[in-house]
Amino acid sequence: MSSMHSLSSTIKVLGFDVFGTIVDWHGSIQREIAAVAPNIDADAFALAWRAGYQPAMQRVRSGELGWTRIDDLHRMILDRILPEFGLQHFDEPQRQHLNLAWHRLRPWADSSPGLRQLRQRFTTCSLSNGNLGLLTDLAKNGSLTWDCLLSAEVFRAYQPDPATYLGVASVFDVKPEEVMLVAAHHDDLAAARQCGLRTAYIERPLEFGVSRPKDVSPQADNDMHARDLIDLANQLGCTA
Amino acid sequence: MSSMHSLSSTIKVLGFDVFGTIVDWHGSIQREIAAVAPNIDADAFALAWRAGYQPAMQRVRSGELGWTRIDDLHRMILDRILPEFGLQHFDEPQRQHLNLAWHRLRPWADSSPGLRQLRQRFTTCSLSNGNLGLLTDLAKNGSLTWDCLLSAEVFRAYQPDPATYLGVASVFDVKPEEVMLVAAHHDDLAAARQCGLRTAYIERPLEFGVSRPKDVSPQADNDMHARDLIDLANQLGCTA
Repeated sequence: MSSMHSLSSTIKVLGFDVFGTIVDWHGSIQREIAAVAPNIDADAFALAWRAGYQPAMQRVRSGELGWTRIDDLHRMILDRILPEFGLQHFDEPQRQHLNLAWHRLRPWADSSPGLRQLRQRFTTCSLSNGNLGLLTDLAKNGSLTWDCLLSAEVFRAYQPDPATYLGVASVFDVKPEEVMLVAAHHDDLAAARQCGLRTAYIERPLEFGVSRPKDVSPQADNDMHARDLIDLANQLGCTA
Repeated sequence: MSSMHSLSSTIKVLGFDVFGTIVDWHGSIQREIAAVAPNIDADAFALAWRAGYQPAMQRVRSGELGWTRIDDLHRMILDRILPEFGLQHFDEPQRQHLNLAWHRLRPWADSSPGLRQLRQRFTTCSLSNGNLGLLTDLAKNGSLTWDCLLSAEVFRAYQPDPATYLGVASVFDVKPEEVMLVAAHHDDLAAARQCGLRTAYIERPLEFGVSRPKDVSPQADNDMHARDLIDLANQLGCTA
């Protein structure tokens, strides 16, 4: 890991992964489905919906699907899994409401104050595969103060496409090494590192639910490792 | 003009023009050039720099230039006008610093509190020909709280291209008539109206400087006419 002092003075922009890193998708989806279908396995439903996400994005990356927003990918996956959970009777308004659960994901407790603290010293932006409308709703509902929302929708490419990581540097007219990606996923960070970005890993042990704790051990390739965003802010010398 | 009550309940998204409507480009540029070149006509310099803006965007719209950010268009215009004001001796660092004056434009006094008030009830976004990095700096320096930054850079098209106005509706998945463009320029509002958006005119009588007051009389085609953003918020029933 690099010296914190040199990192803090080199970095100008912090880009954040959102699903899992800033908001708790598993707990939020579990709660939403439990509210409308109390008799199904809500934990399994949340996992199944999310599990469709990478394959759906892969269909866009490969060109099989044209450019498609996450909102529409979420809806395609939802329509496929509802029958698997015996919920094929859900009508159009119910499906539309449920699909917007991804706009209502709740932030982890440290996300709002942590972002506020980090923003005093750095330019902060989302770097998410979520579309801009979704990210806007998450920010509004969760009191997340960003300097700018960046999304796959801006770059017309999904992570880990280099166009996304390098796009952040380009938008703010800085060098790749002046951008640090902050994420709870080592593979995402590895892809950013290959583009020359700095990386900070955030522990989110409960990303996949309380019954499925995630290995959050440090990996030496990352420039930083933090328990949560407030820990990150403190390590970077941002005052509370 | 439409009834305020029905407008306020129909509109979901407010999109704002930025140069002139939110920030005082003339006063800011005048002050910046006066600080580094005290002997030139700062008022004329500000007007000349801004006057190059529409023709430069036209070169992009026509396809003569490929997609080019406003930062780069500003720089091309700057390099052209410096000799006209006897400032051809400005070196590269001086030109870079001066070009970034557009990132340091100061908001009108009502902009920050007005946006904060409007945001309580509506989704607020910029809709500017300025690039995202520029808009981010304006927001950070001027305490402008947006829900989302939208820019020509997102749509790869400059206003008045319909892709920009309709792009706002698309990003937030609403109908064009659920979006209201807020601007200090009647031509901009007319183009938005042709795409089905609602329009609000904001008086900025000093946009071109104190010695050149602008006609800010109401035009009946606009849905709303307001003195400033706080007046707009009050007319729309947003509490302070």
